[in-house]
Amino acid sequence: MDVLIIGGGIIGSSVAFELAKRGASVTVVERGELAQEASSAAAGMLGAHSEFSTDHPLIPLALASQSLFPSIIAELVELTNINIGWNDVGMLKIATTNEEDRKLMEHYEFWRRIQPQHVRWLTAEEVAQMEPYVQTDYGAMYTIDQQVDARQLSLAFAHAAIAKGARFLPYTEAYDFVFDDERIVGVKTTRGTIYAKQIVIACGAWTPFFAEKLQLSLHMYPVKGECIAVTTEKRLLRATVFAKNGCYIVPKANNRLVIGASALVHSFHKTVQACSVHELLARAMRIVPELAFATFEGAWAGIRPQTKDGMPYIGEHPQYANVFVVTGHYRNGILLSAITGRCVSDMVEGKEVPFDMTPFSLTRKEGKHALHH
Amino acid sequence: MDVLIIGGGIIGSSVAFELAKRGASVTVVERGELAQEASSAAAGMLGAHSEFSTDHPLIPLALASQSLFPSIIAELVELTNINIGWNDVGMLKIATTNEEDRKLMEHYEFWRRIQPQHVRWLTAEEVAQMEPYVQTDYGAMYTIDQQVDARQLSLAFAHAAIAKGARFLPYTEAYDFVFDDERIVGVKTTRGTIYAKQIVIACGAWTPFFAEKLQLSLHMYPVKGECIAVTTEKRLLRATVFAKNGCYIVPKANNRLVIGASALVHSFHKTVQACSVHELLARAMRIVPELAFATFEGAWAGIRPQTKDGMPYIGEHPQYANVFVVTGHYRNGILLSAITGRCVSDMVEGKEVPFDMTPFSLTRKEGKHALHH
Amino acid sequence: MDVLIIGGGIIGSSVAFELAKRGASVTVVERGELAQEASSAAAGMLGAHSEFSTDHPLIPLALASQSLFPSIIAELVELTNINIGWNDVGMLKIATTNEEDRKLMEHYEFWRRIQPQHVRWLTAEEVAQMEPYVQTDYGAMYTIDQQVDARQLSLAFAHAAIAKGARFLPYTEAYDFVFDDERIVGVKTTRGTIYAKQIVIACGAWTPFFAEKLQLSLHMYPVKGECIAVTTEKRLLRATVFAKNGCYIVPKANNRLVIGASALVHSFHKTVQACSVHELLARAMRIVPELAFATFEGAWAGIRPQTKDGMPYIGEHPQYANVFVVTGHYRNGILLSAITGRCVSDMVEGKEVPFDMTPFSLTRKEGKHALHH
Amino acid sequence: MDVLIIGGGIIGSSVAFELAKRGASVTVVERGELAQEASSAAAGMLGAHSEFSTDHPLIPLALASQSLFPSIIAELVELTNINIGWNDVGMLKIATTNEEDRKLMEHYEFWRRIQPQHVRWLTAEEVAQMEPYVQTDYGAMYTIDQQVDARQLSLAFAHAAIAKGARFLPYTEAYDFVFDDERIVGVKTTRGTIYAKQIVIACGAWTPFFAEKLQLSLHMYPVKGECIAVTTEKRLLRATVFAKNGCYIVPKANNRLVIGASALVHSFHKTVQACSVHELLARAMRIVPELAFATFEGAWAGIRPQTKDGMPYIGEHPQYANVFVVTGHYRNGILLSAITGRCVSDMVEGKEVPFDMTPFSLTRKEGKHALHH
Repeated sequence: MDVLIIGGGIIGSSVAFELAKRGASVTVVERGELAQEASSAAAGMLGAHSEFSTDHPLIPLALASQSLFPSIIAELVELTNINIGWNDVGMLKIATTNEEDRKLMEHYEFWRRIQPQHVRWLTAEEVAQMEPYVQTDYGAMYTIDQQVDARQLSLAFAHAAIAKGARFLPYTEAYDFVFDDERIVGVKTTRGTIYAKQIVIACGAWTPFFAEKLQLSLHMYPVKGECIAVTTEKRLLRATVFAKNGCYIVPKANNRLVIGASALVHSFHKTVQACSVHELLARAMRIVPELAFATFEGAWAGIRPQTKDGMPYIGEHPQYANVFVVTGHYRNGILLSAITGRCVSDMVEGKEVPFDMTPFSLTRKEGKHALHH
Repeated sequence: MDVLIIGGGIIGSSVAFELAKRGASVTVVERGELAQEASSAAAGMLGAHSEFSTDHPLIPLALASQSLFPSIIAELVELTNINIGWNDVGMLKIATTNEEDRKLMEHYEFWRRIQPQHVRWLTAEEVAQMEPYVQTDYGAMYTIDQQVDARQLSLAFAHAAIAKGARFLPYTEAYDFVFDDERIVGVKTTRGTIYAKQIVIACGAWTPFFAEKLQLSLHMYPVKGECIAVTTEKRLLRATVFAKNGCYIVPKANNRLVIGASALVHSFHKTVQACSVHELLARAMRIVPELAFATFEGAWAGIRPQTKDGMPYIGEHPQYANVFVVTGHYRNGILLSAITGRCVSDMVEGKEVPFDMTPFSLTRKEGKHALHH
Repeated sequence: MDVLIIGGGIIGSSVAFELAKRGASVTVVERGELAQEASSAAAGMLGAHSEFSTDHPLIPLALASQSLFPSIIAELVELTNINIGWNDVGMLKIATTNEEDRKLMEHYEFWRRIQPQHVRWLTAEEVAQMEPYVQTDYGAMYTIDQQVDARQLSLAFAHAAIAKGARFLPYTEAYDFVFDDERIVGVKTTRGTIYAKQIVIACGAWTPFFAEKLQLSLHMYPVKGECIAVTTEKRLLRATVFAKNGCYIVPKANNRLVIGASALVHSFHKTVQACSVHELLARAMRIVPELAFATFEGAWAGIRPQTKDGMPYIGEHPQYANVFVVTGHYRNGILLSAITGRCVSDMVEGKEVPFDMTPFSLTRKEGKHALHH
Repeated sequence: MDVLIIGGGIIGSSVAFELAKRGASVTVVERGELAQEASSAAAGMLGAHSEFSTDHPLIPLALASQSLFPSIIAELVELTNINIGWNDVGMLKIATTNEEDRKLMEHYEFWRRIQPQHVRWLTAEEVAQMEPYVQTDYGAMYTIDQQVDARQLSLAFAHAAIAKGARFLPYTEAYDFVFDDERIVGVKTTRGTIYAKQIVIACGAWTPFFAEKLQLSLHMYPVKGECIAVTTEKRLLRATVFAKNGCYIVPKANNRLVIGASALVHSFHKTVQACSVHELLARAMRIVPELAFATFEGAWAGIRPQTKDGMPYIGEHPQYANVFVVTGHYRNGILLSAITGRCVSDMVEGKEVPFDMTPFSLTRKEGKHALHH
């Protein structure tokens, strides 16, 4: 086999799909079901604009990834017939306090310079016309933001990879590496040793524990994110609404709305806290008061990989040239999945990556570009 | 057959059990699964003191029913081996506002006169010692209050009735009556007509629609009650805590806590509203702040039968002497199930009921005894 | 209001959609959730050919309904954005015994005369090439058969009707009619009386109990159908496979396969029998042996309305000209939903229906056209 | 801390309970929820006789463990109030083929010599009287066999340990050891490094991958076991029925029956195969034909740790005297949990274990005592 990927989440599956398309012989090992961690828990926004209000090394990748999606979605649906729930109705950003007002304007001003054609300032009347249930004095509309069902997208990458010849082994846990004369030649798994020329580690928040076995210290920590879902009798929102207080409401099919997300650092405890349900409901009802009468459907959590400087790790191991690590996408894993699959595939093939990847290198000094939320 | 009971909830099942014990040939028709409505949704308090702060016709029945439970539970467990989750750790009533303070004291004073041996005033220190996670300045402890798993109790009544010879027909819907010369001789159901000498209608909130077919107008309406459940790593409560603001927290096995309940009048819509989840969490966290960190498990709703004067309907039909109606127990259906089974059985057998049942008659004038909450 | 529809299943929802499109003011009452009975339990085949091997009055409606679907699906998706899971990969009919061989050929010969362009006989080699996992000596391919997610289609009809102005009232149970001088002017429901000019009764297997209240005796009975679902790692089937032994296997998204269906007459008991799970698995593994290694996902049941002569009831009440009854579609409710919506709307509007509806009249003599299975 | 236990299943929890009772400071790390693997999947038989027809080193432990349960259950219920579902109605072993007849008699003869007071041969008439729904020509009744709800027992051990001062850390994954000068001083986990004087590895089927990190090669493999559950309207069985064909039917509360179990070697794939559901139903219906009409509830799988010689590993690491390994209980983990907790606690405390533990040593030569099934 050419490439072994550890981790069957959206990043591992996207890399597998891209490599399989390029002709590689790919195997993915996943210790449980596919897409069971952060990949399934995400609300599925493909919002290239959400996270950035100033220049940031991730912006080129975010924009590139966003622009890839329409064609990738079509390709995945063609190959797998999976319902990915994609749409491109855009994202309405709003503010709920004076402090947030300031940040919203900064955000708007920043993006107006970069993508004037895709961002639009809305007055209260304009908001009322477009999204009559949203309580806000004004808003900024990012017209090209898209969204998906994150779990279905992740499964679609996996099944499309399978359609292209990749092999996925669920319930197969990697627990150590096999060395031969200072080189890594394979991985020990609960199904036995699997040998591979190249290895990609894409285990989300669990990645640092693998990296440690290879003398690589990643400055990372888990951040639990909790979401709730409600349904309504009539459609309350067209676009995703993202308040600067951190609360977002993402409209899905069948009048279902996903409301996210908390951020509990340093927690692998995949349960939902009572206070998070309370707080998410409080925030969402402040933005869309009509939500008070929505039907509560449930709540869930996912464990997202965050890094100390807010930048993902995407790169080659400093000693073991055939080992690649890709993790740390935090809240941007769904958005960045498409471009990450391509960049990692370039690296694995030894091609030049068409982006500056030095900010994401595994051995970087901690950077100054922490994300603003 | 001697007796046909319409309704497989806790009231119908309790009546079936008692009648079967007395030798009657009993059939129960239930349109869905047994105990699927209010009987399953209840938090399961057997709190004879909860609802009353002044003299009330239900008090004798409530106290009698409560005192029956220890022996009935033993009998049901013996017959069915169902885990009913019974315990008698008592109920702590507390206040969260000045207005509630006043009501709490009235409540305490009322019960101290009636049952001085079972009620105790607790200072902040005493509460802190008994229930250290509860935030309150003082409380009143009702030491003989009990609780059960309401659904399991309801199923235990049904299976104990079966053990005594009764027949339960789930997925069998009654939709009309069969008359013979001005007498009712049977019931049309989706399994065909069932003939019976006597008929008991115990359909909870759906009872008035049957009663109407018999020219009986019951002054009733449905009240949706919503509950949530959380679990905690350590045990936070020993006793049930019932705040005068209407919020109660009932500790169950495995560190599970049931928090109830909302009261939405005139709703058969068995879904959970977002605002109710928010409000129940808010109230519960005010009483036990540690609940903020509990694991949220889920939410559900039940439709409870309330009457205009707050009194159940338990009695014989004014025209059709072989038809009995029993409904309207609102929040007291679990508590009153034991005594209701006995009283209705007495009526069916033509015996004298050892309580004054006139306040519950089907033809009463609307009374003045509305329940205080 | 113009029209009140009793029943929020696929038939009631389709009628509501069509009437709302034509400008009527429509209300639908449903006693529980929408699409909760047979409409959700169906495997979702739109197989106009499945049920008929000889001339039959339903064939024109079945073919017309099938041909309507591609455009209706597009319309529903446009209006509701619901994922209906529609595809038109066709249906492969096979035989598993000599007796079935004979029936399969009769079936093929019958359809070859009617739709030679849409049916094709396949040799073992041809089957092996198209559906390599199917064990059969030959088969008949019905190339235009389609399939959907039945529950999603039903919800899409409902939400599209809402988009066109209809009102749906879930948890609202109709229990009697309101008469005014020998005319029916409304319906009593658990939300109060609803007045309407015209009333459509579309309650599936529960319809005869309503009809009885209007002195209409329908010769009907419930037939429980049970299904199971499995998932596989790779795609085993492209087309739906329907064996003449009554077992069908319907491929859904994400390598999910729905296997149906049992037929237990006279049962409203919506649970799944152990022997049905056993028998469905046995039959399916005989057709596709590889299914032995599929992951078992679950089982469910639905209660379908069957009539004594196998013909639906679609028509006007003989006495109450403003009351229409539509039920008895048995295994063809999903397929016939589209055309039924149109025909009933024509009747309600007093227009001529472009099909011979006399075989479906409410007062017909029992016919000779029982369906062959 | 004194002792760190890796693994929050029934074995780790039982050891934690016993050590905490003896005064040790105990922490248990579990990578997911407690009792989520084999401990929850088991049918819960405490059948000391099930597995042995000849002398076997496990028999003394099995009998000792079984005799401990009545008092341990009482202790756990007292400490935790968890419903463990214990009863001691015994086990009826039967044969379904001639070959099984021979084995059943051997089994009976073996146990009649050892425990004549607890085993009884039953004629067809006697079986018919005791278990009228069981189809068999004769049977052997093991009157002291007991059963529990395996998951609840596992949680009760954990919560009783907590009541005695132990600390349980769910969602905390151990992934490596910390060495200090050739000694193991702690464990790296996803919550950081935890130091401990002594370490117990009790990870069920996942144990060999930890052992490997300590140069310990355990001859083990996973065996997937699948079960199904059904419910019946009336009680079909009093005792557990265990056929020599490997199928057992365990009666639980509320007329629920657990039917087990398949045995798929070398599989960590925690899904249920379609063919297993089919086969379990077929076997169970052969033993109790009435089960055909039971309601199918669902199916699940667990991954059990089996060893090459069928003997558990319970012992001290040959090099690291402060590390203990306990695994490999295969189908006897629930039964052996009580005695294992005591034996391992003795080892940890440096006391003599009152059984011959050499057959279970970590460095034994593969033995000759493979279990007969």
